[in-house]
Amino acid sequence: MEIAHPYLLFLGDVPDSLAAKTAIGIVDWRKDWCLGQVRLEGCAADTGLPDMGIAEGAAAGARTMIVGAVNAGGRLPEHWIESIVAALNAGMNVASGLHVRLGSIPAIREAAERNGRALHDVRHNSETFETGKGTKRSGKRILTVGTDCSVGKKYTALAMDKALNERGFSSSFCATGQTGVFISGRGLALDAVVADFIAGAAEWLSPATEDTHWQVIEGQGSLYHPSFAGVSLGLLHGSQPDAFIVCHEPTRTTMRGVQTPLPGIQQVIDLTIQCGQLTNPDIQCIGVSVNTAALSEDDAWKYLAKIGEEFGLPATDPVRFGIEAMVDKIVAEYGAP
Amino acid sequence: MEIAHPYLLFLGDVPDSLAAKTAIGIVDWRKDWCLGQVRLEGCAADTGLPDMGIAEGAAAGARTMIVGAVNAGGRLPEHWIESIVAALNAGMNVASGLHVRLGSIPAIREAAERNGRALHDVRHNSETFETGKGTKRSGKRILTVGTDCSVGKKYTALAMDKALNERGFSSSFCATGQTGVFISGRGLALDAVVADFIAGAAEWLSPATEDTHWQVIEGQGSLYHPSFAGVSLGLLHGSQPDAFIVCHEPTRTTMRGVQTPLPGIQQVIDLTIQCGQLTNPDIQCIGVSVNTAALSEDDAWKYLAKIGEEFGLPATDPVRFGIEAMVDKIVAEYGAP
Repeated sequence: MEIAHPYLLFLGDVPDSLAAKTAIGIVDWRKDWCLGQVRLEGCAADTGLPDMGIAEGAAAGARTMIVGAVNAGGRLPEHWIESIVAALNAGMNVASGLHVRLGSIPAIREAAERNGRALHDVRHNSETFETGKGTKRSGKRILTVGTDCSVGKKYTALAMDKALNERGFSSSFCATGQTGVFISGRGLALDAVVADFIAGAAEWLSPATEDTHWQVIEGQGSLYHPSFAGVSLGLLHGSQPDAFIVCHEPTRTTMRGVQTPLPGIQQVIDLTIQCGQLTNPDIQCIGVSVNTAALSEDDAWKYLAKIGEEFGLPATDPVRFGIEAMVDKIVAEYGAP
Repeated sequence: MEIAHPYLLFLGDVPDSLAAKTAIGIVDWRKDWCLGQVRLEGCAADTGLPDMGIAEGAAAGARTMIVGAVNAGGRLPEHWIESIVAALNAGMNVASGLHVRLGSIPAIREAAERNGRALHDVRHNSETFETGKGTKRSGKRILTVGTDCSVGKKYTALAMDKALNERGFSSSFCATGQTGVFISGRGLALDAVVADFIAGAAEWLSPATEDTHWQVIEGQGSLYHPSFAGVSLGLLHGSQPDAFIVCHEPTRTTMRGVQTPLPGIQQVIDLTIQCGQLTNPDIQCIGVSVNTAALSEDDAWKYLAKIGEEFGLPATDPVRFGIEAMVDKIVAEYGAP
């Protein structure tokens, strides 16, 4: 799925920033693709973009309105439908990460058909995939993996892609989750693919490229997460990474949404190599990315130094301290651009 | 999904037995659920059941007609539609393992609605699952795993379930693939579940039971198969087996449909334990089930003796030599019924 930009971000009337985290993530990484935000009365979230009406956004050149917020329960509130229809009538496509399909709502489907506009439901996909083949493709790949869900895999991949490009590498980001798809304008939510095709979809997402090009692939879940490990393993096999970065949150004790204890970083490195060798015998870990938001700056430095020494790998918090050390590691292992 | 029996098996006009392997598998294991077969002119497959017309099958008491054959390409031939509509008009439900949904064909959908009959598309599912939780459930579970796809995991699970029941255990078979669903009259094709819910669906398939009850769960794929390992891992985590049986075909060198070399039995045992411990710390291997069809009886005995000695586990070909040795192992490890 390819989503046309510039974007107009629709925040509805959500009660807090957390409910607009998709929109905020888009602005963090692709502010230059975003013309403005549409907020209904009572909206308590703010991306910092200029407030616009829908007609104003269309006149400014927005090609897609993104529903970048979710209300409690993930449903589409009745009173948002009017705004979505207005966006379609104004000539924009509409993209959404909600569970409900936009096209399942008659007023929206009819407006899209009448105006010849596209509806993108990023949580769903109609793409047909082959099953994974496991054969080696040209090009180089980095995958972010995790000790858990929601430990910074998307952020780390985006930061790595940006840093590689800034250092003169040819690099691109491969999105595997909904916010990542909006940020890159393409990709798919891998967790919405039918199980038989996880690895095949991952192969499709990171196709053969020139040998000097790096694809930085957004990881999903964790090989140790009892809900989502199947997705993580299919993604690992399909993306056949040369290099991976382990993402970790040091204060967590159980995995997200379940009672299972968090695995150790070494366990994740070992199992990722053991399983990843099936499709890339040369797979190696090139660093540990730590979300230190819960630590003081001093504690964060100490923790990163300890991790770096323990594993003999670059360890950093890309939000606080950048990700240059991992680019250095890429240069050391695979050569300069 | 629950499929009402007795069954009438529809074979269409397929050119060979392989195309009717679903129907033949049902007759192998549930002949007592099958009243007869419906064959169109030119059909070269034969399950050995009495030939019947559709009206005759309905009069004999068939509750579901199963489309137990596939033509080349997996499509539903135009001239089969008439028979399916006739079955619905005669008061039967219709179940199919074809890729196409029965309800997507207007004549079939209308006949089902008109007659108030159910259409079961075993390759699809409309069930909503929770994500996997990974918490321990009561009851005991055996999972069959494999060095590859199509190495006898379904057969081994069915044979084990039958042997356990015959030895006085309380046991049931949990189907995870289409033929298994027809054989047990319930279950689901796990590879058709959306990726996020693989483990959750596996938990749903093998729910908490009495502690003395054994669920024997049909495995899928292989942790080492680059197309399907994600399904295998989600099924392993969700089914949280106490015991597993490794299924193997000794003459194969590469995995089915791909160029990847077949893993060793020890590798499969090790990775299954390593990953399976996440949801069941006591997981252990209780035997190796070998499909020796390609070996002479003498070579088969020698091979099984070698494997049994190498791994210190019961090794058998359940088709040729029965599966009693694994029931003995269950008694030795977990006690008599």
